[in-house]
Parts: sequence; C-alpha cells; structure tokens
Amino acid sequence: MKFELDHIGVAVESLEKGKKFYEALGLGQMSVERVETEKVTVGMFDLANDSRIELLEPTEPDSPVGKFLKESRARHPSYLLKVSDIRATIKSLKASGVQMIHDEPKPGAHDRWIAFIHPKSTGGILIELSQPKGEQA
Amino acid sequence: MKFELDHIGVAVESLEKGKKFYEALGLGQMSVERVETEKVTVGMFDLANDSRIELLEPTEPDSPVGKFLKESRARHPSYLLKVSDIRATIKSLKASGVQMIHDEPKPGAHDRWIAFIHPKSTGGILIELSQPKGEQA
Repeated sequence: MKFELDHIGVAVESLEKGKKFYEALGLGQMSVERVETEKVTVGMFDLANDSRIELLEPTEPDSPVGKFLKESRARHPSYLLKVSDIRATIKSLKASGVQMIHDEPKPGAHDRWIAFIHPKSTGGILIELSQPKGEQA
Repeated sequence: MKFELDHIGVAVESLEKGKKFYEALGLGQMSVERVETEKVTVGMFDLANDSRIELLEPTEPDSPVGKFLKESRARHPSYLLKVSDIRATIKSLKASGVQMIHDEPKPGAHDRWIAFIHPKSTGGILIELSQPKGEQA
C-alpha cells in the first residue's frame, strides 16, 4: 500500500482575500477551478514535490465547505492522502472501528474515487482518501 | 524559489493513543524521536512523495505543543513548507504586512533553519518555514 501527501485544503470565505497571504509567501500564480458537484471554487498553488495547497471557496452557503466555515471557529485545514487501494484502506479502517463518512468510494473530481474519514475518529481532522479512477476501486 | 510540502504536524496528548488511527490506515511502523529543545516527542509516519505525518506529544504541559493542546478545542494540524531561501521568504512576507512569530530564522531540529508565521496572518493556521542549514541563511 502506497500513501502520498497530495494537498492541504484550506476553507476560505473569499479566494481573492485568501490568496493574498500565499502570494506574499511567493507561491506564484494561483490557478482556479470550479467543482460544481461540491459547490466550491478551488484556488490551487503548485508545490515542488507533486503536492499543492488548495483554497476552497464555497459557491453556496449550504455547501459542505460553506457549512464548515459557518460552524468552525478554527480554520483548520484538511488533508488528502492518495492511496493505491481505497477499498482495502476503508475495509482496514472499519475493521479497526474507525468511522467513515463514506463507507463506499464515491466518484470525485478529476476522475478519482474518494472517501472521507469522520473527524470523530481522527482526533478532529478531516482526512480525504483518494484513488485515481483508472485503477480498480 | 522552491516550496515543498514536507509534513503535516498533528498535536496529540499521547503517541500511543494517537498512533492507533494511523496504524489502522496502514501507514506502517511509527518511528519516534525526542526533540528536547521543543519539549516534544515526535512520532513519524513516512509517506511516498518525500513527506511525512508527524504526531507531536508534549513532554511538559508548558511546552509550545502542550499549551496548544490546552487552549485549542479543534486539533487543527499545522504544516511545514521547505523553502529554498528562508530569509528572502521572511522579507517578502513582512513587506506584505504578514506577522511572523520569528522575524529571524532560528536553529531547529535536524540541522535546519526554521521560522513560524503567526496564525493571525494565515487565517488561523500555524505554518512553519524551514531550510536545511547547509544552505545559506
């Protein structure tokens, strides 16, 4: 089983405001992509080791990221792990009593299978598992 | 200027308890290292793309991580960016009005220069900059 740290996701109220800090850091040009299924606009800064920082601006207040911004006082980031076998990983987690938000992989953006682990089981951190759809899931 | 996502740091009250989730995930053996200067014991899980997940257990309640655990209700992770020129990065951030915890690079573990950016300026996230000491700082 192979795991990669793919990106850090940071929920922001506004990409225009949120990007200022990362531009000051020197991360260069932010590329923007709208993900309709998640009701979110994503601003991406590429890093060197095949990883990214992603700013997530909700397009509607009742979207997952919109709700998170309203409920959460701390702007804690989530992170995404690329795994080589998402089904085996979910099975292993559930066998250990870990609570999943998604018990089955569901289709995500960029032709990937995704599944979220419940923050209750991770010490309060939102972790997303992801596997490219080309591979079996 | 080059930036790499080096690791995600997660503050935990106990490495023994905290590691259970990551072992269930299938990340394999955790290696442990004590960092006396920071009064912290670090549990490390290596990932594929030259990155790591680090669990941080305070050795004293008045240490930086100990205080963070006491004050923070959310267990939001911090993250570390490897930069190729830490002085230039600090200078650029300050010129943009970003508040640093360390205005000058200070010596960190593993022969690195480090500097923390104040969460006030990052939307509430603790970000550490780091540069290997072999390079000029």
